[in-house]
Amino acid sequence: MQMIQPRTLKGFRDFLPEAMIPREKLVATAQQVYRSFGYSPIDTPILEYLEILQGKGGDESDRLMYHFEDHGGRAVGMRFDLTVPLARFAAQHAAELGMPFKRYHIAKVWRGENTHRGRYREFMQCDFDTIGTESIAADIETVLVVHELMQALGLSEFQIRFNNRKVLSGLLAKLGLADQSTAVLRALDKLAKIGPDKVAMEMVAVAGASESQAKEVLALAGINGTNDEILLQLAKLVEGSEEGEAGVAALRDVTTGALAAGVSADRLSIDVSIARGLDYYTGTVIETFLNQLPEIGSVCSGGRYDDLASVYTKQRLPGIGASLGLDRLLAAMQELGLIERVNTPAPIFIPFFDATRLHDYLALATQLRSAGLGVEVYAEAKKLGQQLKYADRRGFRLAIIAGDRELDSQTCQVKDLKDGSTIELSTSDPNWVEQLKLQLKK
Amino acid sequence: MQMIQPRTLKGFRDFLPEAMIPREKLVATAQQVYRSFGYSPIDTPILEYLEILQGKGGDESDRLMYHFEDHGGRAVGMRFDLTVPLARFAAQHAAELGMPFKRYHIAKVWRGENTHRGRYREFMQCDFDTIGTESIAADIETVLVVHELMQALGLSEFQIRFNNRKVLSGLLAKLGLADQSTAVLRALDKLAKIGPDKVAMEMVAVAGASESQAKEVLALAGINGTNDEILLQLAKLVEGSEEGEAGVAALRDVTTGALAAGVSADRLSIDVSIARGLDYYTGTVIETFLNQLPEIGSVCSGGRYDDLASVYTKQRLPGIGASLGLDRLLAAMQELGLIERVNTPAPIFIPFFDATRLHDYLALATQLRSAGLGVEVYAEAKKLGQQLKYADRRGFRLAIIAGDRELDSQTCQVKDLKDGSTIELSTSDPNWVEQLKLQLKK
Repeated sequence: MQMIQPRTLKGFRDFLPEAMIPREKLVATAQQVYRSFGYSPIDTPILEYLEILQGKGGDESDRLMYHFEDHGGRAVGMRFDLTVPLARFAAQHAAELGMPFKRYHIAKVWRGENTHRGRYREFMQCDFDTIGTESIAADIETVLVVHELMQALGLSEFQIRFNNRKVLSGLLAKLGLADQSTAVLRALDKLAKIGPDKVAMEMVAVAGASESQAKEVLALAGINGTNDEILLQLAKLVEGSEEGEAGVAALRDVTTGALAAGVSADRLSIDVSIARGLDYYTGTVIETFLNQLPEIGSVCSGGRYDDLASVYTKQRLPGIGASLGLDRLLAAMQELGLIERVNTPAPIFIPFFDATRLHDYLALATQLRSAGLGVEVYAEAKKLGQQLKYADRRGFRLAIIAGDRELDSQTCQVKDLKDGSTIELSTSDPNWVEQLKLQLKK
Repeated sequence: MQMIQPRTLKGFRDFLPEAMIPREKLVATAQQVYRSFGYSPIDTPILEYLEILQGKGGDESDRLMYHFEDHGGRAVGMRFDLTVPLARFAAQHAAELGMPFKRYHIAKVWRGENTHRGRYREFMQCDFDTIGTESIAADIETVLVVHELMQALGLSEFQIRFNNRKVLSGLLAKLGLADQSTAVLRALDKLAKIGPDKVAMEMVAVAGASESQAKEVLALAGINGTNDEILLQLAKLVEGSEEGEAGVAALRDVTTGALAAGVSADRLSIDVSIARGLDYYTGTVIETFLNQLPEIGSVCSGGRYDDLASVYTKQRLPGIGASLGLDRLLAAMQELGLIERVNTPAPIFIPFFDATRLHDYLALATQLRSAGLGVEVYAEAKKLGQQLKYADRRGFRLAIIAGDRELDSQTCQVKDLKDGSTIELSTSDPNWVEQLKLQLKK
């Protein structure tokens, strides 16, 4: 028979257990945190009408979209983000959902990107949004969710850096650059990457700013100090601009609100250099950096938008949301040693040691599972050495070894697979499972 | 501006919170159970090379597949099940995975099915498999996983019905119908649906059996009694057929093994009428029925196969697995009243009651979340009545109502949103969170 070579498409990945176990854990943590703030899960189809996905269309997302004609001759596409499906979903079900509406959505998206730069064509997004309200309470909560997310993932050294687009817009209006704000912001967004000189050049070349205007904008972006110091300087800069003053007030409210909710001041920085390129952000913008790995960029980003779904409904749906950078964060956690390398989600291994005693092993495993412990019984009665090699390779923590002698005397050998030490436990002792749990925590 | 009508494709669904909350819970339970037996999560791309998905090909799955040409001119398809991707995955990574290999995979698949019969074109599969072993221990474990899954989902009245294809094959060989076994099995598989007369007719018409042969096959399918009685009768029927005797021995081993592991006898039935149409099953076959809803059919089904991935590798990969019928099970659990209707995953609601006290509400919510409770603070300082209407609609359990007076005196009103009763708690009492938890359990 002709064999077919097993392989994946370029830009697509298999996830083996070693990669998938921490991914699932991260997703479960995100779900738990989102839920604890009252965000509800939703799901939408992976395929949508092409015209839905194109929406305002015409930009880069269009070119990168996977699309085709389905069996019924419909033009369909695979979603390239979770924001467009949320907009369609919110417009379609607004009455049933009720506003404000808080949702999270953790799912895959596809882009036919160039793979040269290590980009994948299939990846997971991990979004949460509050729509249907302009209240600053939602902005504060977004910061709190990010903060709780980082903590729940075991990350303690991070900074949530935020800004408000109205501050910049207000300043640009004062400088007479209001019409060029998108181009100016796009340039400014590259500040960390390309430095002030090149940003200034881009402002002059693309946004039509004068060199002195570019300098003033960069001066704003250079403001730093404590949050209070920054707020004072900003208030002076935007004085007289209604929009700019509203932006500064929002920055102050987010800061004091987050502090009141228990965020420590050193994790919270107003950062006027953050603009976020996307032109639909209109208020608060947020990025999150790991202190030990600033070079990887923001691991959780988002912001406030004026209107989510104007392409699909006349109902105005303002909102705010953010997205966890799953792959980037996993890579960072690996680098920080926060991810244990295991190929099994169960910590305990029971070798199928004596071919005649399978029923005893099964009963033992049932007992431990009902005490909440994950247990794998090896499937075949092979030599113990082979089975322990398998257990090592999978990364089990403990092996419970019992042959005829042990089973008949209601004992077992508990072998620590990390340090090789062994203790004997009496399975007739009512506390033996507790003792086993202590061994696991060792 | 021209509006685009927000809508989903035929056969595709949005999941609103009320539907998605129980789905996520079911998935989390399945993950937890699979893990507790040492099955590891994996994931594979949604798009694969078309030739990979076609594999042995030529059958129905081919016609129903979503496929197209990607940006690079490659013929690609969207997976229609999780078994073909597992076969490709196992063949590609066999050396790295090591055998036996136990994996679960919970993910979406697509089929361009006719939607007339209420079928969806996008749905979730929830599979677990053990590959690389022919040991009966894996067959027993598969039954145990199904049993534990049902229990973990809160279902107590169910039956795991199982059979072994070798028993039937052995009998067919004795009857001289070995060559027609696939057609006979396909007919037999419809027994519960269309009754014995029509099955006999199909055996004669399609499988070329004589009427007396069809009668003998149906006589076998009609055997019932206790598991021990069935085993005795079967042993007699297949006597002399090596294959048939192996099948009866396997049935006996699965029965005694599952009992030894703690499965109660009334949940475990040998059922000789179960054949499962797919011709790749070669040994144990399993179905699971809810006692109160037998008409919905099996909610968890699977079986043993001789070789998973012969299209992609010369390495023989025998295995056994099963799949949880997620949608069917959710519908059943709804009918049995096992699913609470809520639109929020958080049980506690804090109205934003006094516009000047947002910081107090945020601090209160932080305190409760750090005690493990899910809490939503309403986003806007609206009238209390409007906020409580929102809370009712979402299905929160308790509202913590605190205005100026309560906050200043460190108290709060805890309103039960089910029965409308209210108690006052003192938030300065170190036990107040425990008292709140008691109210939640009421």
